[in-house]
Amino acid sequence: MAGSTLGTLFRVTNFGESHGPAIGCVVDGCPPGLELSAADIQPDLDRRRPGTSRHVTQRQEEDRVEILSGVFEGRTTGTPIGLLIRNTDQRSKDYANLLDTFRPGHADYTYLHKYGLRDPRGGGRASARLTAPTVAAAAIAKKWLKLRHGTSFVGHLSQIGEIVVPFEGLEHIESNPFFAANASDIARIEAYVDQLRKDGDSCGARVDVAARGVPVGLGDPLYDKLDADIAFAMMGLNAVKGVEIGAGFASVAQRGKTHGDELTPEGFLSNNAGGVLGGISTGQDLLVSIAIKPTSSIRSPRRSIDLAGEATVVETHGRHDPCVGIRAAPIAEALLALVVMDHVLLQRAQCGDVRVATPPIPARAP
Amino acid sequence: MAGSTLGTLFRVTNFGESHGPAIGCVVDGCPPGLELSAADIQPDLDRRRPGTSRHVTQRQEEDRVEILSGVFEGRTTGTPIGLLIRNTDQRSKDYANLLDTFRPGHADYTYLHKYGLRDPRGGGRASARLTAPTVAAAAIAKKWLKLRHGTSFVGHLSQIGEIVVPFEGLEHIESNPFFAANASDIARIEAYVDQLRKDGDSCGARVDVAARGVPVGLGDPLYDKLDADIAFAMMGLNAVKGVEIGAGFASVAQRGKTHGDELTPEGFLSNNAGGVLGGISTGQDLLVSIAIKPTSSIRSPRRSIDLAGEATVVETHGRHDPCVGIRAAPIAEALLALVVMDHVLLQRAQCGDVRVATPPIPARAP
Amino acid sequence: MAGSTLGTLFRVTNFGESHGPAIGCVVDGCPPGLELSAADIQPDLDRRRPGTSRHVTQRQEEDRVEILSGVFEGRTTGTPIGLLIRNTDQRSKDYANLLDTFRPGHADYTYLHKYGLRDPRGGGRASARLTAPTVAAAAIAKKWLKLRHGTSFVGHLSQIGEIVVPFEGLEHIESNPFFAANASDIARIEAYVDQLRKDGDSCGARVDVAARGVPVGLGDPLYDKLDADIAFAMMGLNAVKGVEIGAGFASVAQRGKTHGDELTPEGFLSNNAGGVLGGISTGQDLLVSIAIKPTSSIRSPRRSIDLAGEATVVETHGRHDPCVGIRAAPIAEALLALVVMDHVLLQRAQCGDVRVATPPIPARAP
Amino acid sequence: MAGSTLGTLFRVTNFGESHGPAIGCVVDGCPPGLELSAADIQPDLDRRRPGTSRHVTQRQEEDRVEILSGVFEGRTTGTPIGLLIRNTDQRSKDYANLLDTFRPGHADYTYLHKYGLRDPRGGGRASARLTAPTVAAAAIAKKWLKLRHGTSFVGHLSQIGEIVVPFEGLEHIESNPFFAANASDIARIEAYVDQLRKDGDSCGARVDVAARGVPVGLGDPLYDKLDADIAFAMMGLNAVKGVEIGAGFASVAQRGKTHGDELTPEGFLSNNAGGVLGGISTGQDLLVSIAIKPTSSIRSPRRSIDLAGEATVVETHGRHDPCVGIRAAPIAEALLALVVMDHVLLQRAQCGDVRVATPPIPARAP
Repeated sequence: MAGSTLGTLFRVTNFGESHGPAIGCVVDGCPPGLELSAADIQPDLDRRRPGTSRHVTQRQEEDRVEILSGVFEGRTTGTPIGLLIRNTDQRSKDYANLLDTFRPGHADYTYLHKYGLRDPRGGGRASARLTAPTVAAAAIAKKWLKLRHGTSFVGHLSQIGEIVVPFEGLEHIESNPFFAANASDIARIEAYVDQLRKDGDSCGARVDVAARGVPVGLGDPLYDKLDADIAFAMMGLNAVKGVEIGAGFASVAQRGKTHGDELTPEGFLSNNAGGVLGGISTGQDLLVSIAIKPTSSIRSPRRSIDLAGEATVVETHGRHDPCVGIRAAPIAEALLALVVMDHVLLQRAQCGDVRVATPPIPARAP
Repeated sequence: MAGSTLGTLFRVTNFGESHGPAIGCVVDGCPPGLELSAADIQPDLDRRRPGTSRHVTQRQEEDRVEILSGVFEGRTTGTPIGLLIRNTDQRSKDYANLLDTFRPGHADYTYLHKYGLRDPRGGGRASARLTAPTVAAAAIAKKWLKLRHGTSFVGHLSQIGEIVVPFEGLEHIESNPFFAANASDIARIEAYVDQLRKDGDSCGARVDVAARGVPVGLGDPLYDKLDADIAFAMMGLNAVKGVEIGAGFASVAQRGKTHGDELTPEGFLSNNAGGVLGGISTGQDLLVSIAIKPTSSIRSPRRSIDLAGEATVVETHGRHDPCVGIRAAPIAEALLALVVMDHVLLQRAQCGDVRVATPPIPARAP
Repeated sequence: MAGSTLGTLFRVTNFGESHGPAIGCVVDGCPPGLELSAADIQPDLDRRRPGTSRHVTQRQEEDRVEILSGVFEGRTTGTPIGLLIRNTDQRSKDYANLLDTFRPGHADYTYLHKYGLRDPRGGGRASARLTAPTVAAAAIAKKWLKLRHGTSFVGHLSQIGEIVVPFEGLEHIESNPFFAANASDIARIEAYVDQLRKDGDSCGARVDVAARGVPVGLGDPLYDKLDADIAFAMMGLNAVKGVEIGAGFASVAQRGKTHGDELTPEGFLSNNAGGVLGGISTGQDLLVSIAIKPTSSIRSPRRSIDLAGEATVVETHGRHDPCVGIRAAPIAEALLALVVMDHVLLQRAQCGDVRVATPPIPARAP
Repeated sequence: MAGSTLGTLFRVTNFGESHGPAIGCVVDGCPPGLELSAADIQPDLDRRRPGTSRHVTQRQEEDRVEILSGVFEGRTTGTPIGLLIRNTDQRSKDYANLLDTFRPGHADYTYLHKYGLRDPRGGGRASARLTAPTVAAAAIAKKWLKLRHGTSFVGHLSQIGEIVVPFEGLEHIESNPFFAANASDIARIEAYVDQLRKDGDSCGARVDVAARGVPVGLGDPLYDKLDADIAFAMMGLNAVKGVEIGAGFASVAQRGKTHGDELTPEGFLSNNAGGVLGGISTGQDLLVSIAIKPTSSIRSPRRSIDLAGEATVVETHGRHDPCVGIRAAPIAEALLALVVMDHVLLQRAQCGDVRVATPPIPARAP
C-alpha cells in the first residue's frame, strides 16, 4: 500500500493528472476467467463523469475506457489489466494564474513544498479526476464479487451542507443528479446548490456507502483490519475529512448494553458494528459514512501568499464542482469494493481450508 | 501494510496474545546511531499500563520491556530491534466459559468464522493488551522525531460517554487517571465511571491527538496519503469506530469560504485541514479525533448464540476496562508517531534533494 | 515485490501482452525535478528493439514510447510516470495452431495449469516483448543515477552457445549486432547463428553486466540484500537459468586466502565479491553474470501432449530469436539499474544522516 | 520483501545478532488449525546447529526455540507466531580487536559505511547464526506443505572446494557431518577440511537443493516469478555468490533441441527447466544449486586498512566454520520451503477457482 498502489493482492496502480495526455491504472491480481469488456466498466465511469448536470463541473470528458491488456477472447487471463482514459477537454489556460499563489484549502502549497515544483493545470494529480481509474478498476472487482459472492455496493448522499437528506429508499438514487436516496427534497437541494454557485461558494457533504453480501471472516486482527483498510481507502478520497464505521461517532455516547449487537439464530438484532468486529467482517452489511469538505476552488477572494512569501489575495475561476460530495457516491462504492475484493483474496489465501461446523447466522434478523 | 506489520520503511511487526507467554514486536528500519535503552521505552508503556487506577482493568502487568536486538553499546545499529514483554498475570480460568458462546460486540464470532478456532483467553489477539508493543515501538519513533525534527505528540480524552470534557490545558493530562486536559471535572468523571461499573455497563469515548512540529511535505497524493495512513492506523486500534482529521464531520455543514485555511506570511489563520492538504502535511499541527465504542465485555446479560447455533444468554465476568477510551490517549499518540515517522523516511527517500526558494510559513499565525 | 511490480520505492508496474493493443508500465516514486522527455527513453528502447539485424526476430515494432503522466514542462513532478508503447506488428495467425498443444521448454503448459486459460498470441505475457517497459522505466533510473551519483551500466554478450567471446573492450559493444565486447570474432558468431537458423535450432548465452560508480552502503543485511534483489531481478528475465555475483560459481573451488578482496588505502586489490559484501555494496563495480537458456520456440519437431493429454508432436513456426541472449544486454543493464535506483532511495531513507569520519576507499586500486 | 521480512503472505520477519541477548522471528500468515509445538521445529534447528562435529565452529548453542504466540491448545490460530532463541555462548572478547579494521571478504567495511557504526561481536547481524530463525520458520511451512500437498525438501553438499562429491543416494545425507549424498568419500572430505583448518584457510562449496511434490501453477509471469523468488532467497543466504535453476549455467552451451523438456502423457522426459517454465512451477521437482564462497574469517594474515584509512594487516581468530557450505543444506531447504509456501498461498488467492479439464501430467516419466 505504498504510493500510488492500492491493495495487496488485488492491486490498483494509478497514474495521471487532470490535464496530462491520459489517466489510467493497472489492475494486478484479478482472478482469471472472468468475462470482461469495456462495457462492464463504462457504466460506473459514466455515473461519476463530470458535466452531467448543472450542479457539477462543466468539463466535458467522455471518459471512454480502453482495456490495454489482461483480457483474451473476452475473459481475464490473470495477468495485469491496463486501463486507459484519454483526457480530451483540458483548458489549461484557466489555471495559468494559479502558479504564483496558493488556494486556501487546496494542495497547491503542500505539493510545492514536497516536490519543489507542481503541475497547476486543473489541480494536476490532486484533481478529483483521478478517481476515474479507481472507479474503472473497481468495476472489475464489483463484477467478480457479484458473481462469486453475491456482494453488492450502494452509496448515497445523506447530507449536503446544512441539508440532511431524508432516506426514502435506495431506488431513488439513480433518479436525481445527487445520488440522494430521496425523491421529495431534490428541488430544495437544487435550489441550495444553485445559490451556492451564485454566491461563489461551496459546501461539504456526507455520503453513506454500504456493502451487502459480504462473506464473514474478512480482515486481519492487527494491524490490517478490514475497517482499517476501509478507513485508509476512504480518507484517501479527495476532500474526505472523516470516516465512520457503523455507529461511528455516535458510539461515543452509547452504553455497552446498547452498542453490542446481540446475536440470535435468526440473525443479528442490530448493526452498530457496521459489519466489522475485531477488524473482521461479521457478514452483516458493511456500513461506512464519510465527511467531505467544501471545495477549495471558489470564486471568492481569500487571503494567501505568493511564491515569494508575500501576502496576496486569490480567487479561483475555471470549472469546479460546488460540492464534490455530489459525485462521490460512485467513488465511495468503488473504494469499498476494492477493499472487500482484496480481503476476499487474502482470506482464501490464508484460510481457504477453514470449515466451521455451524454455518454463519443470517446477516440480519427478520 | 499487510497483516501484522505497520509501516513501509519504519516497520513494526506485532505478535502475541493476551494470555500467551509473551507479546512484542520487531521494529525494522530504524535509523542507526540513535541512543536507545529500555529506559526510553518504559515510560510510555507505564502510561498505558493496566491496573493503575480503579477505573481500568485490575490486571497487574509490569509490562517490562526487553530489547533483544538492534542496539549496540547504547545506540541503534540500523538492524531490527526486537522488543519483548512477558505476560505475567494471566488468569485464564476467567474465560473458560466463553469458548461456547459469543459476546455481543466482541470479536469472538468473527474469529471463529475466520479461523475455525480461537484463543478465548483474555480476548486472545483481539485484546487491547496488544497495543503495548505498538506503544513500545512508537517510543523509539518519538525519540528520533523529537531529536531530528522537534516533533511532539499529545493525546487527551475529550469526551467520555455523555460527558464532554472541557479543554483546560495540556498540563493537566498526566495529573488525572483519564488523560483529560482538564482539572475541574475529574471528580464528575470518576463518579460517572464508578456508576458504570456498578451498573455492569460500559461507555464510549472520544480522544483527540495532535502532532506538533511536523515537517511540511509528508504523504503521497494518491493513494498513500498522510491522512489515509493516519486513518488506517487509528481505525486499526481496538474499538475505534470513527476517525476525523481537522474539522472532520463538522466540514459537512461548512462553506468553502469558512473551511479553507487562509495563508499569511506570518502563518495559517486556521487549521480546518488538521495539518493535511491533498494528502500531504502542511506543517501545521496534525489534528486527529477518534470515536471509541463502549467495551463489549460487560456484566449484564445479553442475547447470543452458542457454538451449535442455539439461542443463549451471555454475561461476561473477569477484569475489564469499563471504557477503553480511558487508556487510549497514549496509544493514539503512538500510532500517530509511527505514521509520521514512516512518512518522514519516505519523504527523504523520494524528495531528499528538493529545495524550495521560499521557506514554509510558520505553522500558525500569532 | 509481489506480482507485476518491481521495487519498493522506485516501483515499476508492468502490463501488456505480446499481441494485445499495447504494453507499458507505471513508474512510481521517481524523484521530482528530473529533466525528462521521450527522447531520454527512446535510445534504450531502440537498442533492445527486434528486427534490427537478421539474427533476431523479424517482427517490426517501432516501440515508440509515449509519456502519459508525471512530467510537467519537461521535468518529473514526483507523481507516477505512465509509459505506453503500442503494439503494431501483431501477426496472431502464426500462433493459432499453438492453442492445442504445449511447446517443450515454453510457458504454455504452466500458464494453462495456473490460470485455466492462456493467451497464445506471440507468447502472450511470457513474451520477451514485455522487457520493453522495463527498459523504458530503467532509462529514467539510469538518467537520475548518472546525474546524481555518476553511476553507469554496461552489459555485453560473453558467450553464445559453445563460443566464448573474448573480451576486447567495451567500445565494441555498440558496433556489432550481438552486444559483444569484441571486434575479431563477429564473423564467426554470425556464421554460428546463421547455421542455427538453418538447423531450426537455438542456443543459450551468457551475458555479463556491470554497474560502475555505485555508492557504498546499498542493501540490507537480511533478507533484502542488494545481491538478493539483483538475483531476483535477473532470474525474473525471460529464459534466465542462473545468476552469479562476482566470482560466482568459481568461488566454490576458491580458497579463503584468494577469495577475500584485500583492502589498501589506494583501493581494493580484487573484486571477487562483485561489489557486494554482506548484502551491502562496497562501492566497487557490481559484477553480474547470467545464463540464458536456448529459445524454446524452434522449427524442429518435438514430443509433446495436446489439450486432451494425448501424445503429439509440436513444431514452432513464426518469428523467433534463435538466441534471446543476443538482445539481452540492454535488458540486463536495465534490471541492474532499477535495483540500484531502488536501493539508493532506500539507503537515504534510513541512513541519510550517516556520516563516517574516513571516506570510502577508491573502488579499485590502480 | 523489504528489509528483514521474507515473503508476501507467509511472512518471516527476522531479528537478532550473533552476540545479542536473543535471535528470533515472527511468522505471519500461517494457516490456522495446524498442529504445532516446539518439537516440530527443534529437529531442523538441531540439523543446522554449530558445534556438532570438529568440522564446524565450536560455538556451543543449544538453539532451543520457544513459541511465544500464535498457538493455542497445540494448534496454530492464524495469528503471528513469535519464535525466540536465546543466545547462550557469546564470547565477545574474541572480537574486540576487530573493531579497528576490516576483514577482507567480510561485511565489516560495508556495515560501517552504511550505518556509521557496527556491532563487531561475532559478525553481528552478518553472522550465519541468523539463519536459525529462518530454519525455524521454515519448519512450520514444511509441515504444512507436507500435510497439505505432500511436498518435501532435501538439500545436500555436492562440491566442497576442489572435491566434487559423487551422488550416491539421498539416504546418506544424515549419516555424515557434511550433508553429503555420499558414503564413499567422507574420509577424503574430512581429511581435506582438517588440512584447511591446519592451513588457517577456508574453501567454498556447492549445495544442491530440491523440492518434490510441488503443485503446478506457482509463480507469477512477471516480475514475481517463482524462480526469481527462489533466486532472491538463495542469494540472500550468507556467502552465496551464485544460483542456478535446473540446467543453470550449463544452458549456455545447450541447444534448443536438447534443453526444452519434452512432454508425454506419462510425464516429462527431462528436467532442464528445474521445475519452472515462464516463472511458474511445472509440477516437476524444483532443482536449485548454489555457490558458496570461502569463509572470510581465516587465521592467515591479509592486507587491509584501519579505521583511519591506513594500511594494516588483519588475521582473524575465534571460532569459525572453515566452510560455511558444510551446514548450508538445511538452510537452503528452509529457504526453498518458505518460497514455495508463500507461492502456494498466493496461488490459491488468485486462482483458487481454476479448474482444468485435463489434470497435470506426472512430474516425471518412468
